[in-house]
Amino acid sequence: MDKIIAYLKANQERFLAELFEYLRFASVSAQPKHKPDLQACAEWLVAHCRQIGLEAEVRPTDGHPIVVAKTPREAGSRKPHYVVYGHYDVQPPEPLELWKSPPFEPRIEGRNLFARGSTDNKGQNFAHLKAVEAYLKTGTPLPCDLTFVIEGEEEVGSANLDKFLSRHRQELKCEAFVISDTGMPSLKHPALTYGLRGIIAFEITLTGPARDLHSGIFGGAVDNPAMALAQLLAKVRDNRGRITIPGFYDGVLPLTKYEREQNKLYPIKDAQLKKLLGVRELFGEQGFSATEQRSARPTFEINGLTSGYQGEGSKTIVPSWARAKITCRLVPNQKPEKIRKAVLAWLKKNSSPTVKLEITAGHGAEAYHFDPTGKPAQAALRALEKAFKHKPVLMREGGSIPIVNQFKKILGADSLLLGIGLPDDNAHSPNEKFNLDCFEKGQLMGAYLWQELVR
Amino acid sequence: MDKIIAYLKANQERFLAELFEYLRFASVSAQPKHKPDLQACAEWLVAHCRQIGLEAEVRPTDGHPIVVAKTPREAGSRKPHYVVYGHYDVQPPEPLELWKSPPFEPRIEGRNLFARGSTDNKGQNFAHLKAVEAYLKTGTPLPCDLTFVIEGEEEVGSANLDKFLSRHRQELKCEAFVISDTGMPSLKHPALTYGLRGIIAFEITLTGPARDLHSGIFGGAVDNPAMALAQLLAKVRDNRGRITIPGFYDGVLPLTKYEREQNKLYPIKDAQLKKLLGVRELFGEQGFSATEQRSARPTFEINGLTSGYQGEGSKTIVPSWARAKITCRLVPNQKPEKIRKAVLAWLKKNSSPTVKLEITAGHGAEAYHFDPTGKPAQAALRALEKAFKHKPVLMREGGSIPIVNQFKKILGADSLLLGIGLPDDNAHSPNEKFNLDCFEKGQLMGAYLWQELVR
Repeated sequence: MDKIIAYLKANQERFLAELFEYLRFASVSAQPKHKPDLQACAEWLVAHCRQIGLEAEVRPTDGHPIVVAKTPREAGSRKPHYVVYGHYDVQPPEPLELWKSPPFEPRIEGRNLFARGSTDNKGQNFAHLKAVEAYLKTGTPLPCDLTFVIEGEEEVGSANLDKFLSRHRQELKCEAFVISDTGMPSLKHPALTYGLRGIIAFEITLTGPARDLHSGIFGGAVDNPAMALAQLLAKVRDNRGRITIPGFYDGVLPLTKYEREQNKLYPIKDAQLKKLLGVRELFGEQGFSATEQRSARPTFEINGLTSGYQGEGSKTIVPSWARAKITCRLVPNQKPEKIRKAVLAWLKKNSSPTVKLEITAGHGAEAYHFDPTGKPAQAALRALEKAFKHKPVLMREGGSIPIVNQFKKILGADSLLLGIGLPDDNAHSPNEKFNLDCFEKGQLMGAYLWQELVR
Repeated sequence: MDKIIAYLKANQERFLAELFEYLRFASVSAQPKHKPDLQACAEWLVAHCRQIGLEAEVRPTDGHPIVVAKTPREAGSRKPHYVVYGHYDVQPPEPLELWKSPPFEPRIEGRNLFARGSTDNKGQNFAHLKAVEAYLKTGTPLPCDLTFVIEGEEEVGSANLDKFLSRHRQELKCEAFVISDTGMPSLKHPALTYGLRGIIAFEITLTGPARDLHSGIFGGAVDNPAMALAQLLAKVRDNRGRITIPGFYDGVLPLTKYEREQNKLYPIKDAQLKKLLGVRELFGEQGFSATEQRSARPTFEINGLTSGYQGEGSKTIVPSWARAKITCRLVPNQKPEKIRKAVLAWLKKNSSPTVKLEITAGHGAEAYHFDPTGKPAQAALRALEKAFKHKPVLMREGGSIPIVNQFKKILGADSLLLGIGLPDDNAHSPNEKFNLDCFEKGQLMGAYLWQELVR
């Protein structure tokens, strides 16, 4: 490892210049006008991969192309195979007026590199490329075969990834996916994310009268759909923060003692979280810490309410209908369709007969979880600790990353989520940045990882 | 009365031609471009009043002028004085594309006269003018002195009427106001409205986190303001349709046995109301009929709900805030400010400590009520029965008519609400119309009324 460490140290300046080049492509997948920029970015990336010794090519899809780059294989290699996943597309930079410098003109201020895509995901993924370059350029044998899959549609739902994974099932067969596209609490708290929440989304509409009614002339003799909705939703949660719908907690994987101990190490404490979110007080399911509530427990969340008059002043109506947009976050081992069925059945049963209940089903996704005490997870933790020189934390994230489920479903492989972004990186926001310590330590982590995984 | 009846009968054709002229003025008070039309309409009306023998003039205000027209007074007259209130301004006609014929080109189809303002209020008020014309032109002595006050700002809140009433308190001192600007259930059910509901309006906003939060990353550890709002509002009404806020029913004037008997005569029955409103079932406070619920009982009505994301699809957020617009209808003898105080105190007490409650106070108005068994009411009922040849019903209306409270407050006089509009007249809607039988019988009612009131 000494040669690798020395190589990485010696080349940081060049690495940054290269990353600048990469970040200058306005590879905004959501905006059709940037289609040529995505193509050019993919081609640049392939050229760069070849330059560092990988066998790379642009693979066309029905959307933006996917870059595939492989370490040179020995004939008949029986080394373990890992796939490093990343994406070269970025979020739209708008609103531009909130950026302190142009989003596609990278700029360094202190230890931060500002540019759209710097943390999400070009910079994080590039650290892995540089780690592999160090192996290849120093002639250090890699203990594994590696394939980089770097797509161009992550920010728009990875619509063509499923087909690509299925079509190249053999080629991509691997021990695990390695993904650095999430976060860590601080530079002192490198993290392995071993769980993600799932989701079900739906919309309920209660309709009362055929049209908005004059609340003076008719109010009092008909139910108000907004009140019916309030009374229906109010019953969903008790005053201990627990969802009352029978079956809602079906399948919930309980937290192990090990996990609860690990959760205590999570550095963002209640007082800090309260301040960060600007709430008067925290509130959640009793018996769980805030960290557990927002990562390991399912929720029933109203995302939006719509009914009647919403303009200035007042309009004296009984609204014809009232609507709530809802998402439930699910946790490992809950089955989205089973929970959806339980929730919708309960809503139907409890909706007032005075109104008509209509339900529009939205998307659903399973939660993700893999054993944090298993060999790959423990190897990842060791790599993190060696690179960052701090004891890493084990984390579950409350959000969903659908591709992780696709990897599991289509290729049967788990994902090691080794995010090296920081909470203030402004991913998806103006002034996105990437910390240069994260970049350097991320390269080291990438380098250690392949050693630790085969130990 | 024979001469009067004969006169009215003989002149219907001319009356209609005159009403057509009156309706051709686009006297839309809400639209500044129509200011000259309002002035021209007021001047036409004064000229017309003079022509039928009234002493009339245009009285300027800070807004649109008020037309005042009086029956000629005998020197030292000690006759009782009544004021007939009406308005010559009309609602905006938009959306124009929904009109079958232009709103300011009156048209007769069968027994209906279509035009903006035909029922609200030019036609209804014109019937009173024609009744008085019959007295004056046939040389029949009027048993009362009459003053017509016909304003041009009713549809925009009568902003200058208060000042006018106060300034002319002596001139307008009267036994009662007579207003035909409401409705009757059908041609077979002429009606006297003797009660109106009052109102308090306000808006409540619950704020949780300082901004919308990612429901995956933070959901579960903070309260959702939309849920907090639902749980707060849900507690307001029990499953028997009764408002649970202590003090909410304070002051409610109970229905007398006479009133409850009268309410049974109200011709729109539950099944018909259900169909009219397009609801699955009616719902209201137990122990009261639908007619009573919507006219003689107070309500707590959600007029609008706003929170979070309301567009297409889903957005996975914990919204920062949730808002409800609310109006409570009040009934005779409830004090709006007392009820408002009780409601807001309850909301403050019951709002969750996890969210910040903000209340924006809106308008308030007292309910209106006068004794339906008293002499003026009974006189009005006799006039209705003689004119329409059907037993009239006694009604309370669920809406508010603020001017009626102003008349009571400033001049100490009650209002006889003798509406001759029908439920399908489309007041405030496209294709407004006025029934010609209502017009003719309304003239007769107007003629009988002055006789009955002095009996």
